[in-house]
Amino acid sequence: MDTVTPMPLTREDRAMSRFVDDYLLYLMARASHVLSAEFHTTLRRAGVPVPVWRVLATLSGSPPETVTGLAEACLLQQPTMTKLLDRMVRDGLVQRLPDAKDRRVVRIEATPRGEALVKDLLDAARQHETEVLRRFPEMDEHALKELLRAIIARPARGRRAAVRAA
Amino acid sequence: MDTVTPMPLTREDRAMSRFVDDYLLYLMARASHVLSAEFHTTLRRAGVPVPVWRVLATLSGSPPETVTGLAEACLLQQPTMTKLLDRMVRDGLVQRLPDAKDRRVVRIEATPRGEALVKDLLDAARQHETEVLRRFPEMDEHALKELLRAIIARPARGRRAAVRAA
Repeated sequence: MDTVTPMPLTREDRAMSRFVDDYLLYLMARASHVLSAEFHTTLRRAGVPVPVWRVLATLSGSPPETVTGLAEACLLQQPTMTKLLDRMVRDGLVQRLPDAKDRRVVRIEATPRGEALVKDLLDAARQHETEVLRRFPEMDEHALKELLRAIIARPARGRRAAVRAA
Repeated sequence: MDTVTPMPLTREDRAMSRFVDDYLLYLMARASHVLSAEFHTTLRRAGVPVPVWRVLATLSGSPPETVTGLAEACLLQQPTMTKLLDRMVRDGLVQRLPDAKDRRVVRIEATPRGEALVKDLLDAARQHETEVLRRFPEMDEHALKELLRAIIARPARGRRAAVRAA
């Protein structure tokens, strides 16, 4: 016996072995979705749309970010991000400013109003994470985060160049 | 020194610490997205839409699945899944059949044509996974998959009931 609590298997799971139940990309996508959905109930109660949360959370503790950087971080297409930012500028949550070095590049920063809106949500997100770590004591927080950061930073050969060109 | 290769940090990363870079839900979503996007280039080359791949991969090695089960596994809303299945039935990739025990419940299974379509993609997915595991030797495949299966199987209290009722 190790410290991992066996997951409950349905009758069907026992009967045969599904491809996806041992497929890393499926397990990562589904587990990520389950945990994110838990936090999204907090966002719904606060009346904050998920993409608005993602933008403000990404800008938190960050220097002003490019639209491309925000789109990548928030898993949105660039045109969708541009429209979202238009709305968030109108709502006074973020502002556009020219890059310090290249004035053709636009950067985005949170306004004091945006920072105020996200403050309690950041606390709630940290609390939820603490609760998740408690629920899964088999999770090695440091090793897992290092691995995930490495996956994000080290895409397959050829991919990084493609992303940069997009 | 441990075996983890440090990720390259940008100038901005070094200057200050972004909330999301230490936020588990962000890191999981982004890493999952990066790895899935790698495999999606294979799907694009094969001309198979991502949702069609997800349905056929989920049915692989599985007994006939309910629409609800497929929607959950493929991270789609139920009405979207119903429309997708209509199209896949028309294309001869899946078929609907009544549940063996409760004829009011519809189950979905792949047709021989659907199975033929997904066969090479399953091989490509396994190959990609092998390549990912080689690229990240710090990844403990067994422990990580156990953890992800546990996250999927053990949602926060109250959530499972809500999902079942939906």
